[in-house]
Amino acid sequence: MRRAVESAQVMTVRNGARLRRRDNLAGEEPMQIRAGSPAQEPVDVAVTMRTPGHDFELAAGFLFSEGLIGPDDVIRVSYCDDLDEEQRYNVVTVRLSTTFVGPARSFYGTSSCGICGKSSLDQVSVRCAPITERVSVSPGALTALPDELRKAQRVFSQTGGLHAAGLFTPDRGLHAVREDVGRHNAVDKLIGLALLAGVLPLAGRILLVSGRAGFEIVQKAAVAGVPIVAAVSAPSSLAVSAADRFGITLVGFLRGSGFNIYTHADRVLGGAGEG
Amino acid sequence: MRRAVESAQVMTVRNGARLRRRDNLAGEEPMQIRAGSPAQEPVDVAVTMRTPGHDFELAAGFLFSEGLIGPDDVIRVSYCDDLDEEQRYNVVTVRLSTTFVGPARSFYGTSSCGICGKSSLDQVSVRCAPITERVSVSPGALTALPDELRKAQRVFSQTGGLHAAGLFTPDRGLHAVREDVGRHNAVDKLIGLALLAGVLPLAGRILLVSGRAGFEIVQKAAVAGVPIVAAVSAPSSLAVSAADRFGITLVGFLRGSGFNIYTHADRVLGGAGEG
Repeated sequence: MRRAVESAQVMTVRNGARLRRRDNLAGEEPMQIRAGSPAQEPVDVAVTMRTPGHDFELAAGFLFSEGLIGPDDVIRVSYCDDLDEEQRYNVVTVRLSTTFVGPARSFYGTSSCGICGKSSLDQVSVRCAPITERVSVSPGALTALPDELRKAQRVFSQTGGLHAAGLFTPDRGLHAVREDVGRHNAVDKLIGLALLAGVLPLAGRILLVSGRAGFEIVQKAAVAGVPIVAAVSAPSSLAVSAADRFGITLVGFLRGSGFNIYTHADRVLGGAGEG
Repeated sequence: MRRAVESAQVMTVRNGARLRRRDNLAGEEPMQIRAGSPAQEPVDVAVTMRTPGHDFELAAGFLFSEGLIGPDDVIRVSYCDDLDEEQRYNVVTVRLSTTFVGPARSFYGTSSCGICGKSSLDQVSVRCAPITERVSVSPGALTALPDELRKAQRVFSQTGGLHAAGLFTPDRGLHAVREDVGRHNAVDKLIGLALLAGVLPLAGRILLVSGRAGFEIVQKAAVAGVPIVAAVSAPSSLAVSAADRFGITLVGFLRGSGFNIYTHADRVLGGAGEG
């Protein structure tokens, strides 16, 4: 079985001095996601480069957050027993209660339905209504989240290089953290955890990502029903448009004692935020 | 035409104080890449979320670095004139001197050829011989590169949030820098620049990325013939395996006065690096 942390020989050079030592690296391996009903030959859906661990959550979360399955469709998730040791844990099959029809050619549409930011937003809108939930978090509670996330990053603390995503509730703190070489994967692992635990949608939750927030992060949050998304680094233009349209409070540059709010500020600032 | 920098209303909260202002965001828009000979209806190859700008380089670089076309196949790259204003600059067609057969179902193979780190390396090996070039860079020259890259990051300096990739020569400094919300896109833009300029392979060059180095970054460097890859942050386990196998010198944690060397250290340290 592949590991989340691997070890390698490394030469450290600093101020002219050289030190040969062993160091830890974040694990990275391809994983193939398959889906199908029990009566169906599984369909190959995607291959993602991921950090091994929480593979079933990643597979289920990816299929759901990309709009390919519903929240109650999963019967069982398994590794591929008929492959050799080297590959077995890199192929994950998600068994569904309905026949899997497979993804469209492209997740973002073809020329017939438009390739632009607006059409990307339209496609997500079809799958989920805007979030109207009235939940609130104080500025002080928000600024405490990055430290909580960092303390829970076990692989990062060993390797110094990994994305993380954490799910929080405003009053009860960190619910779960997942790490991955791919930042979308870390979010999919969290969403898959919720799906397999049967607790979707993620009402009342805050999703914190250790890096930037692009469109796809906000899209996944919208599909999972997360009302507040916070990023340690910057959001993109389309992430802000998506958060605005899907009713998500988007916070960026959450560092030290401050942050920026880009959309739906009332969940952080109360009515004053809209003034 | 879409812009690399967009502007948005933002509320900044710091130490209890609130400030409403306009801020700059890194632009993000989907882009569809099509390819085909002049006699062929273009094939839809991929849709990527990217920062607008250097779109032709991105399209050509992606096709080449993923092994879908050769370095001399491109006749012409163009936007799609028959689409409306909103979409026109998000669809890029690459015209080739040969018929385009399209990508395999998955870039990383199917169950028949194996889903594992080794099979990923095998697939890249088919397309490119290991790099044996004897080029060298001093530790002092290496540690100067991140500052050079940062100074050239025009979009980052306006938005505070964007990946960058830079091409350097050991003696003549920065050759080109490209920025993107996707770190693979930034590398593809650099490789596409070289392809369209007819200067592949990138012998004697150093590729510096502003974040981490995963397998796909090393894969793209290998296909483009870059002998030295450096990252400001950590490499993954499979990136190290790939660099070792493809003959690439991989440097990580390139910050301040130091760095780590993971593979083929002789290009930095001379013969002593192998001792």
